[in-house]
Amino acid sequence: MMIVMREEATPPIGPRYKLASSQFRHGERTVIDIDGRKIGGPHFATIAGPCTVESRDVLLDAAHAVKDGGAQLLRGGAYKPRTSPYSFQGLGEEGLRLLAEAKQQTGMPIVTEVMDVRDLDAVLEVADVIQLGARNMQNYTLLTELGRAGRPVLIKRGLSATLEELLMAAEYVLKEGNTDVMLCERGIRTFESAYRFTLDLMAIGVLKELTHLPVLVDPSHAAGRRDLVPSLSLAAAAAGADGIIVEVHPDPDKAICDGPQQLYAGDFADYLRQVERVAEIAGKRVAAAV
Amino acid sequence: MMIVMREEATPPIGPRYKLASSQFRHGERTVIDIDGRKIGGPHFATIAGPCTVESRDVLLDAAHAVKDGGAQLLRGGAYKPRTSPYSFQGLGEEGLRLLAEAKQQTGMPIVTEVMDVRDLDAVLEVADVIQLGARNMQNYTLLTELGRAGRPVLIKRGLSATLEELLMAAEYVLKEGNTDVMLCERGIRTFESAYRFTLDLMAIGVLKELTHLPVLVDPSHAAGRRDLVPSLSLAAAAAGADGIIVEVHPDPDKAICDGPQQLYAGDFADYLRQVERVAEIAGKRVAAAV
Amino acid sequence: MMIVMREEATPPIGPRYKLASSQFRHGERTVIDIDGRKIGGPHFATIAGPCTVESRDVLLDAAHAVKDGGAQLLRGGAYKPRTSPYSFQGLGEEGLRLLAEAKQQTGMPIVTEVMDVRDLDAVLEVADVIQLGARNMQNYTLLTELGRAGRPVLIKRGLSATLEELLMAAEYVLKEGNTDVMLCERGIRTFESAYRFTLDLMAIGVLKELTHLPVLVDPSHAAGRRDLVPSLSLAAAAAGADGIIVEVHPDPDKAICDGPQQLYAGDFADYLRQVERVAEIAGKRVAAAV
Amino acid sequence: MMIVMREEATPPIGPRYKLASSQFRHGERTVIDIDGRKIGGPHFATIAGPCTVESRDVLLDAAHAVKDGGAQLLRGGAYKPRTSPYSFQGLGEEGLRLLAEAKQQTGMPIVTEVMDVRDLDAVLEVADVIQLGARNMQNYTLLTELGRAGRPVLIKRGLSATLEELLMAAEYVLKEGNTDVMLCERGIRTFESAYRFTLDLMAIGVLKELTHLPVLVDPSHAAGRRDLVPSLSLAAAAAGADGIIVEVHPDPDKAICDGPQQLYAGDFADYLRQVERVAEIAGKRVAAAV
Repeated sequence: MMIVMREEATPPIGPRYKLASSQFRHGERTVIDIDGRKIGGPHFATIAGPCTVESRDVLLDAAHAVKDGGAQLLRGGAYKPRTSPYSFQGLGEEGLRLLAEAKQQTGMPIVTEVMDVRDLDAVLEVADVIQLGARNMQNYTLLTELGRAGRPVLIKRGLSATLEELLMAAEYVLKEGNTDVMLCERGIRTFESAYRFTLDLMAIGVLKELTHLPVLVDPSHAAGRRDLVPSLSLAAAAAGADGIIVEVHPDPDKAICDGPQQLYAGDFADYLRQVERVAEIAGKRVAAAV
Repeated sequence: MMIVMREEATPPIGPRYKLASSQFRHGERTVIDIDGRKIGGPHFATIAGPCTVESRDVLLDAAHAVKDGGAQLLRGGAYKPRTSPYSFQGLGEEGLRLLAEAKQQTGMPIVTEVMDVRDLDAVLEVADVIQLGARNMQNYTLLTELGRAGRPVLIKRGLSATLEELLMAAEYVLKEGNTDVMLCERGIRTFESAYRFTLDLMAIGVLKELTHLPVLVDPSHAAGRRDLVPSLSLAAAAAGADGIIVEVHPDPDKAICDGPQQLYAGDFADYLRQVERVAEIAGKRVAAAV
Repeated sequence: MMIVMREEATPPIGPRYKLASSQFRHGERTVIDIDGRKIGGPHFATIAGPCTVESRDVLLDAAHAVKDGGAQLLRGGAYKPRTSPYSFQGLGEEGLRLLAEAKQQTGMPIVTEVMDVRDLDAVLEVADVIQLGARNMQNYTLLTELGRAGRPVLIKRGLSATLEELLMAAEYVLKEGNTDVMLCERGIRTFESAYRFTLDLMAIGVLKELTHLPVLVDPSHAAGRRDLVPSLSLAAAAAGADGIIVEVHPDPDKAICDGPQQLYAGDFADYLRQVERVAEIAGKRVAAAV
Repeated sequence: MMIVMREEATPPIGPRYKLASSQFRHGERTVIDIDGRKIGGPHFATIAGPCTVESRDVLLDAAHAVKDGGAQLLRGGAYKPRTSPYSFQGLGEEGLRLLAEAKQQTGMPIVTEVMDVRDLDAVLEVADVIQLGARNMQNYTLLTELGRAGRPVLIKRGLSATLEELLMAAEYVLKEGNTDVMLCERGIRTFESAYRFTLDLMAIGVLKELTHLPVLVDPSHAAGRRDLVPSLSLAAAAAGADGIIVEVHPDPDKAICDGPQQLYAGDFADYLRQVERVAEIAGKRVAAAV
């Protein structure tokens, strides 16, 4: 017996994300230009700074150190998602004001996180890239607002998000017309309890096959330990990442939060040289300091 | 050689959550009273209704069926968190209006989800219990607002949230003075790909040791398949759950979303009888229909 | 445009396991008869006994207690797979001798584990059911020998084995002509660190759809804690398990290994009554004591 | 109030593995010398060859290609652990004979797997390094025999083995007096279904802190896809691995098993140059061809 079916039913449907898929741009890669700093395609970029904006001195010291060390963008959190309601929650608007000052002093574009749609306007005053944290990766109302904000967005992969879910999160932003979306692997949750999260570097190559969007790696949060950050950063560059976002502090032992995972500012320049050498072997063009 | 240390350094510090811990209430259990329906302690409660509010007829048919079948509360989503921006996102305020009508007709208290702090006031107009979805379990700004809303809250465990993280989410609500918090196990993400999520029934006994808060189970979302829902519901009751929250639809095959996991309304009464028999063996008091 | 394809290409190929699949027996379920005790199909069976055979007195006391309490088969390990080479490894052949004595005294069939193909002949002298431990689930040479041994086999699911892999392990035994294979869920490894393993009760219903083989549950190893064993046993029975295999010891506080997870022999009879009541609600026929 | 305790109770007890721990060798690293090829400490080594020994021509072609490309040791499986009993199980003793011929022709030491203690003597006739597969990582009777075999052992991490369990497996071998043990990360099982396994490169740095034993990486089995192997190999070298074990085949499209993950022999030399450049940046000494 024979059966007949319409041809359009035969081919696979393709991924559920459309605008984020590699096919959508026919193999061309998205390059995001942030005030002259390029992320994606052939470009390797480094985002560095303290975990949280904790004081004017710490932020400015860190900002100058990472700029001198060769970073392209400055990171720092004014709003901090914390597992415990009793932990330090960030300086909020005061933190944003300090980020604005650091930007003015160093000329570095700012990457900072938003947690609440009601804070978005204030964050947009200072942020050149808006970060969406791992725990908010499926906060769909926030994603939609970021899609309308007209500012580059860095989406961190959720602790147990599949790559498809990460790309669907990006799709929420892209669908609103915002094409400047970066993805960031930062460690997933596995059975292994010897470290905080398991950095999934296999995600880099697979994401770059599935999507045209840039893929960064955050080695600091995955490890939760400073001593693992350099080797994981080299590994991320070797695996083909489009950049890293790394925590650097002038005096990590006194940091308000996540001190043990932040690099010493004094070690940053040497660290970054190594990372960039590996990125070049992996075929990347390393940005000259702006 | 001998060393000397202060005794207060010896005992463990205790859990990071305080208000949620069993010690905080010295072994007494929280019982939440929602317009006469009790959840927690000796009481077993059933929350049932369609996945999403999709039309007046479907909602009212489901509401009458679950009431007649013995459920205590009515569930139904007006705002739906969806992995894809292209999926149906819920009827929104129109859905809330229909829930209000169902409540008026049946007298059943309403359980419905909020995703966005900006929708909270509208949701509070109709909801007797506000549900926080698994993907929002660590949406700390929303948790804080729920703590201030003065309405019972049902927090679903995140797909890869540890029990400690779930209890820390509850702590955000409790810290604002809202003591009516329920927890809900709804399946976690594991390596197993034969089903959507892995329902973690071991969590029930352990949560009940760690906290005084009621613990419910959602068998529908874990399975994603109707045929597994009855046996998982029996297992949840056997494992000591304080209640179940289950999806029921008058015509699941035509449901807009999650049809395959919703029970047929016509089967609900028999199903619930079985579940309640097992709950009684597990030591629970089953509520008489109100 | 229309295309034409042969109908036989349309249906899915079916599972990679063949003899273990439900289709192979056209929906009929395998019932294993062990000296009059039946496992599978409508029958619910209980296997109980100490974790390890540690002494004559302990084994015989446990054996009489579980027999009097209503268990059908006696378990006890002579060869113990241990993570550490410094842990007690079992009494070996002396343990087998004691099992033979317990069998003679009580008339209960014996379930015991084999770890090494070289011990198989000795184990076959006493075992009525040969257990393959979770860590050996993919020990293919051992599986093949068990297929040739002509004795019922109980295969424990590996800590991170998918259901398909578990069924493929069964297939190794079935392929050699041994049709008496039972499967056993005993907890999988997940991200959750609040308990040793996560008992995957969803596996029961799904396995019973995929295969005709009986499915048991081991609540003792999953929990690693005595206090969770009763509620997990009830849940297993509620979920449709064909039986449980549970650890019972006359004096668990003095047990050589896994004391904290073994039930007190004195509590066993009451415990089993509860479990059997739930099994009956779930549709099972409970064996009368032999 | 003050309490007094004996000092030896104060320090943590230390890891459960002793001979495998870093402390045991006071920070000195184990370097294994296999007929002049060194693995561990400052040395980076490459083990390459076909997945399975499938024919004389394929093996010899692969052997010459990987030798000319700069590999130090030749790998090839004569006994293959397969999930399905219907899959090709390896050539067995005929495969060992071919490996002996390849060794004679190329002078390369041989790395091959043993699955069954009964095959150990035959494998010892040809193997310079005995591989224990991931699924046998907790086959304690086999581990004990390898400890007595007096031949270097390469232990692959189980699919869901913690680092502690991996080190406990090594401890079984070390305890019998065999000090030449290498560990190998080959991908763990996680929730992510976009790839076969998740290569856990964070394990490298942590293992090198916990143990003095060399740590290798197998990028082929983790990925299951050839196109990911080069970037994962670079990442492994960047992360500080002591070597890689990689599958190479003269004609992977015709390979009997795991063809899609094997590198083309013709690409091997260029691939290895890249890997070695990164290993040197990570501080390793690359072996000159012997």
